[in-house]
Amino acid sequence: MPSGNPTVYITRKGHFSASHRLFNRQWSNDRNQEVFGKCNNPNGHGHNYEVEVTVAGSIGPDTGMVMDLKKLADLLDEEVLERFDHKHLNHDVEALKGVIPTAENIAIVIWKILSDRIPDGRLFSVKLYESGNNFVEYRGDRTA
Amino acid sequence: MPSGNPTVYITRKGHFSASHRLFNRQWSNDRNQEVFGKCNNPNGHGHNYEVEVTVAGSIGPDTGMVMDLKKLADLLDEEVLERFDHKHLNHDVEALKGVIPTAENIAIVIWKILSDRIPDGRLFSVKLYESGNNFVEYRGDRTA
Amino acid sequence: MPSGNPTVYITRKGHFSASHRLFNRQWSNDRNQEVFGKCNNPNGHGHNYEVEVTVAGSIGPDTGMVMDLKKLADLLDEEVLERFDHKHLNHDVEALKGVIPTAENIAIVIWKILSDRIPDGRLFSVKLYESGNNFVEYRGDRTA
Amino acid sequence: MPSGNPTVYITRKGHFSASHRLFNRQWSNDRNQEVFGKCNNPNGHGHNYEVEVTVAGSIGPDTGMVMDLKKLADLLDEEVLERFDHKHLNHDVEALKGVIPTAENIAIVIWKILSDRIPDGRLFSVKLYESGNNFVEYRGDRTA
Amino acid sequence: MPSGNPTVYITRKGHFSASHRLFNRQWSNDRNQEVFGKCNNPNGHGHNYEVEVTVAGSIGPDTGMVMDLKKLADLLDEEVLERFDHKHLNHDVEALKGVIPTAENIAIVIWKILSDRIPDGRLFSVKLYESGNNFVEYRGDRTA
Amino acid sequence: MPSGNPTVYITRKGHFSASHRLFNRQWSNDRNQEVFGKCNNPNGHGHNYEVEVTVAGSIGPDTGMVMDLKKLADLLDEEVLERFDHKHLNHDVEALKGVIPTAENIAIVIWKILSDRIPDGRLFSVKLYESGNNFVEYRGDRTA
Repeated sequence: MPSGNPTVYITRKGHFSASHRLFNRQWSNDRNQEVFGKCNNPNGHGHNYEVEVTVAGSIGPDTGMVMDLKKLADLLDEEVLERFDHKHLNHDVEALKGVIPTAENIAIVIWKILSDRIPDGRLFSVKLYESGNNFVEYRGDRTA
Repeated sequence: MPSGNPTVYITRKGHFSASHRLFNRQWSNDRNQEVFGKCNNPNGHGHNYEVEVTVAGSIGPDTGMVMDLKKLADLLDEEVLERFDHKHLNHDVEALKGVIPTAENIAIVIWKILSDRIPDGRLFSVKLYESGNNFVEYRGDRTA
Repeated sequence: MPSGNPTVYITRKGHFSASHRLFNRQWSNDRNQEVFGKCNNPNGHGHNYEVEVTVAGSIGPDTGMVMDLKKLADLLDEEVLERFDHKHLNHDVEALKGVIPTAENIAIVIWKILSDRIPDGRLFSVKLYESGNNFVEYRGDRTA
Repeated sequence: MPSGNPTVYITRKGHFSASHRLFNRQWSNDRNQEVFGKCNNPNGHGHNYEVEVTVAGSIGPDTGMVMDLKKLADLLDEEVLERFDHKHLNHDVEALKGVIPTAENIAIVIWKILSDRIPDGRLFSVKLYESGNNFVEYRGDRTA
Repeated sequence: MPSGNPTVYITRKGHFSASHRLFNRQWSNDRNQEVFGKCNNPNGHGHNYEVEVTVAGSIGPDTGMVMDLKKLADLLDEEVLERFDHKHLNHDVEALKGVIPTAENIAIVIWKILSDRIPDGRLFSVKLYESGNNFVEYRGDRTA
Repeated sequence: MPSGNPTVYITRKGHFSASHRLFNRQWSNDRNQEVFGKCNNPNGHGHNYEVEVTVAGSIGPDTGMVMDLKKLADLLDEEVLERFDHKHLNHDVEALKGVIPTAENIAIVIWKILSDRIPDGRLFSVKLYESGNNFVEYRGDRTA
């Protein structure tokens, strides 16, 4: 059996389908259009978002696990996916109120939600795919 | 070089990101909620749609092609993707006016748009993925 | 809105992780090894199976749907995925008792389970992926 | 065990990486450029091709299989992948001599190679992906 | 040609299909069921595992390579995939004897196997996908 | 709204299809064959390459973005994809002249091209997939 207490990174992936509009309410329509382009469509547009949550930790000698992936999956479902799925991110999600729902900001908000529930600094990364070609990652206050 | 005039099926895949809401305006809110559930969220939700367009035909002996895939790609881009991408399908797309934008109806509308531009009954199939787990296909009036 | 009653094919995809062993109990060990090779490993091996269920039908004019994909998803979950997931297909699944659990036979069994629940011959196809490189499809008694 | 002799479709997928140039040697350079565009780059370009071979048949009652997928995989490897992989399709592959190596023609040539080795008309389809967005399918002389 | 000796990370991906059961033989059945849930199914269940092995190093000026990817692929095949594929990880794999075959422990064991064969601390990461939604990574004794 | 100036990593993915041949012109044919094997095929072979470019930075408080992903996409298109797509990497790409076009060297060359256009050390990683099973990553002169 593996000895010592090596760090292992475990990741759970989830999905949610949502609408958003990139829009800064303190700017003119022209300025919003200039900066956000087609992402500023007034009626919004949408994505199948994929979110990967990574937790780092040592392995429990009795379980062979860093953390029960089922519990991480449940946490992600309850705290994030159920609140974000089939919603308009500008209007329907409490945690995003007042936030421009760029992928970057959504990832940071998901980090904040989960870091309260995953103790001891073990939350390592939140990665958010807006599409197969665009994605972002946030690792908290750590430097690169 | 292959002899005869065998039928070959060629497919071009494209992507668009859009919002929609499933909602029958002739029904009460309760009835809409009962039938469409979370897909009836008033502010809408969204998807990264993938659309596969298949054309059937014999191979041109000089070109080795059923149809220039670049032309099929351009047709799909101009007639469908540019009109559907980063839009709200209930509000922003002329071809969908008055249509409940289920995947089934979107596929049929894309078929109608393209069948005018792909002559001689060669359009064979329009397949639309709403997510990795849900997709529909329409093959025109052919029987299964 | 689309007129007429065209046939549309809708598909729901699901996943289950299971073990199996290819083994004909009426054969000798040597014969089993010769025919099934490494798939005959006595302790079994396993796969992340993916199953795609396709239903064909005309679109309800009030709903824009062939069938509520949510109901198809629930049906697939309850009747198939919950019974097959995290199981050994030779030992733990009632519907597979006495069946050599090849991908072909599993697809046919899933068809039989679902065709009782999807009336009027609308079940069109069951496609089963054993891995990204191996998959099978069953379309009932229809000819190719 | 499933009764009767239903038809099941089994598919094996393989990969090869190759170069090609679309070019009709009986045409002028200008004509080639007009028809084939960037696919006519004189030094060629390349793809990771994916090929899916589908065989249709009834299930052997003793094996639960249409055909040993391992044998289909070996056939595909030996007859196709080893001859096409890491090659320039215009120059290095005997079976493609004199053929403009469009996806359509490559699929037909693979069909011809395999149909000699898969008896009794059981070869059902050859599907060739040139990229994730472009693919073709050939089903022999069958009508759609 | 690139000057200096920058570090580049090269990765080879491989696949194996196997069964496992999460079970601590020093615990009661109830305790095992409580901790491991459906992963404790007595007859086991299985996965199509994907393993990504990353080696870090500087580029050989004559070869343009960190390490021959073909050799890395052969090493992965011989030392890992051939021993793990189509096996029951609790019973059939020597290197896993006495280890609860969680994804975490399997990744560490694969690291140990390969680090003996990839000298000079160049093995950088072993990433193991149990499914598309669950994966782990081990990077040796390095801190995050 | 997220406070402070946390670092976020944003990634854009692009594709190009190209040919290459691994070959050191200062070596004998035998030596080239010994080292590069089938990758040394004189007429070349090809791939659908995928390139992921990652930029690290803090989020603009007015935009919610590290950098406009559309601008990163345009930069990648203009500086890399248009120059590499449908080309033979040994002959047709100025930036690769004199370089053995291994995945490692291509990644470094793409890094050099982009680092001139992405100021202030914010380019974080260039990841290049030669196929689904082989990929490399370069992170500049940073240590692992």
